[in-house]
Amino acid sequence: MTMQGFGKLMSLKEARAILAGIVPKIHDEQIPLDQALYRVLAEDIISELDVPNFRKSAMDGFAVIASDTFGAANTGPKTLRIVDCVVAGEVSGKELSSGKCIEITTGSPLPDSADAVVMVEYTEKEDSCISVYKSVAPWENVIRIGSDVKKGTMVLKKGTRLGPRFTGVLAALGRKNVLVKKIPRVGMLSTGDEIVGLDEELVEGKVFDINSRTLIDSIKEMHCLPLDLGVAGDDKELLKKKILEGVEKSDIMIISGGSSLGTEDLTRSVVEDLGKVLVHGIAVKPGKPVI
Amino acid sequence: MTMQGFGKLMSLKEARAILAGIVPKIHDEQIPLDQALYRVLAEDIISELDVPNFRKSAMDGFAVIASDTFGAANTGPKTLRIVDCVVAGEVSGKELSSGKCIEITTGSPLPDSADAVVMVEYTEKEDSCISVYKSVAPWENVIRIGSDVKKGTMVLKKGTRLGPRFTGVLAALGRKNVLVKKIPRVGMLSTGDEIVGLDEELVEGKVFDINSRTLIDSIKEMHCLPLDLGVAGDDKELLKKKILEGVEKSDIMIISGGSSLGTEDLTRSVVEDLGKVLVHGIAVKPGKPVI
Repeated sequence: MTMQGFGKLMSLKEARAILAGIVPKIHDEQIPLDQALYRVLAEDIISELDVPNFRKSAMDGFAVIASDTFGAANTGPKTLRIVDCVVAGEVSGKELSSGKCIEITTGSPLPDSADAVVMVEYTEKEDSCISVYKSVAPWENVIRIGSDVKKGTMVLKKGTRLGPRFTGVLAALGRKNVLVKKIPRVGMLSTGDEIVGLDEELVEGKVFDINSRTLIDSIKEMHCLPLDLGVAGDDKELLKKKILEGVEKSDIMIISGGSSLGTEDLTRSVVEDLGKVLVHGIAVKPGKPVI
Repeated sequence: MTMQGFGKLMSLKEARAILAGIVPKIHDEQIPLDQALYRVLAEDIISELDVPNFRKSAMDGFAVIASDTFGAANTGPKTLRIVDCVVAGEVSGKELSSGKCIEITTGSPLPDSADAVVMVEYTEKEDSCISVYKSVAPWENVIRIGSDVKKGTMVLKKGTRLGPRFTGVLAALGRKNVLVKKIPRVGMLSTGDEIVGLDEELVEGKVFDINSRTLIDSIKEMHCLPLDLGVAGDDKELLKKKILEGVEKSDIMIISGGSSLGTEDLTRSVVEDLGKVLVHGIAVKPGKPVI
């Protein structure tokens, strides 16, 4: 019995294994952080600063010397005198000594001599004094230097795809620019005399070009840049020309469609002829899109 | 005891319930299918054609009259004469009568008088005849009209987000254009005197603007268009101006950051003052990004 045609179909697993072995050479580029969403890191990110880089209040309230509040309770509050007020983004120049406090807002730098923050909810204000109804332990309600990220820490590894959380981390580290892989350009070529574009008439025997739409949009979904090479009918020279154009202009190339015996042989034989040229070429069994 | 400040934090569940109740009015627009990836359908899609709209071969092989092959086996093949060859995209004009077959490729239109296809693997060709080693039942290896999609079927519902499979389906239906919702424009405003941009110096008490980066990239991730309104320091007039600009230019607005007591009151009071203007405004508790 003669085995004609393409013979046995390749399994998805086999096809994936082959594809996994193809690593196109994609160069790196330096880009601004505000364009880095979904890009792939081409450098390890090691923090050059502590985040935060100052001791900061985790609460709205009063910066205190913790020991001044020891023993404070609803039934026996401690009284402290307000000597300053510090809001986020400012630094208090005032010295804090026992019996004094500085009004402070969330995110504001803790005055040097303070070692805790009493939440505003546990205080009562009258003129320039507060009653403290709950004691705090040293460093309570204080965000320590480097508590989010310590200077010198490896934060993100080369090869990481930058989702919104990761671009946010890079902003926290003050990174204006970042080294990433260029976006791979993926050429998409449909083949087959039966394929018609959406602006053509659907006469008997023809089908609209479904694979191009699905695969080009899948390329976009994978954050790559599609290059639409259109449809090459069952014409060996045109097919060769389009494949060479695709290889020239893209990093990866997908050939889809063309279901006739003749076409199959055509696609395969053209790809084989071009073998040495097609360093990064992927020949996919016609009609079996690989997503 | 006096309760100062913002009081109890809103739970994520409560915040989500409030957000779910806010439905900005987004208009529809007609766009070309090749720009429709991730867009939200503003029309029901009812197929105006059968897919496929002709009977087609599912295999490479030979179009036959099924009864001609009955009884065919490895030990006793049936012989048929090849009268034509039809490839994908073409239609055979030849009439098929008993004892005859037409060579056919996958996806090609089945000749009118044929009712099955014998796979090439089960045949042997010699001159203008084939030996058939396996019988086929009527309609075996034939893709019927409308077997993918029947004319008149509701294929996709209004409100569907168009992933690559769905844009592929629309291509199959021959849709050149599609009615979708406009892309919502989401304004993003950071507030707080402690926030500095990535091109500014990080002096004590300041932090880089992390929320803008994270939220703007999250807006992109949700396939919306971000509008970066920058940072409004703790200045009531600037805040008011920026909020009005955001409401004017965007469909949804997010206000983030600003952690001082004064600022909290400021953001809230400005939003409340503007209440009637802010038809679509969302006031989010400063410092608690809603993603």
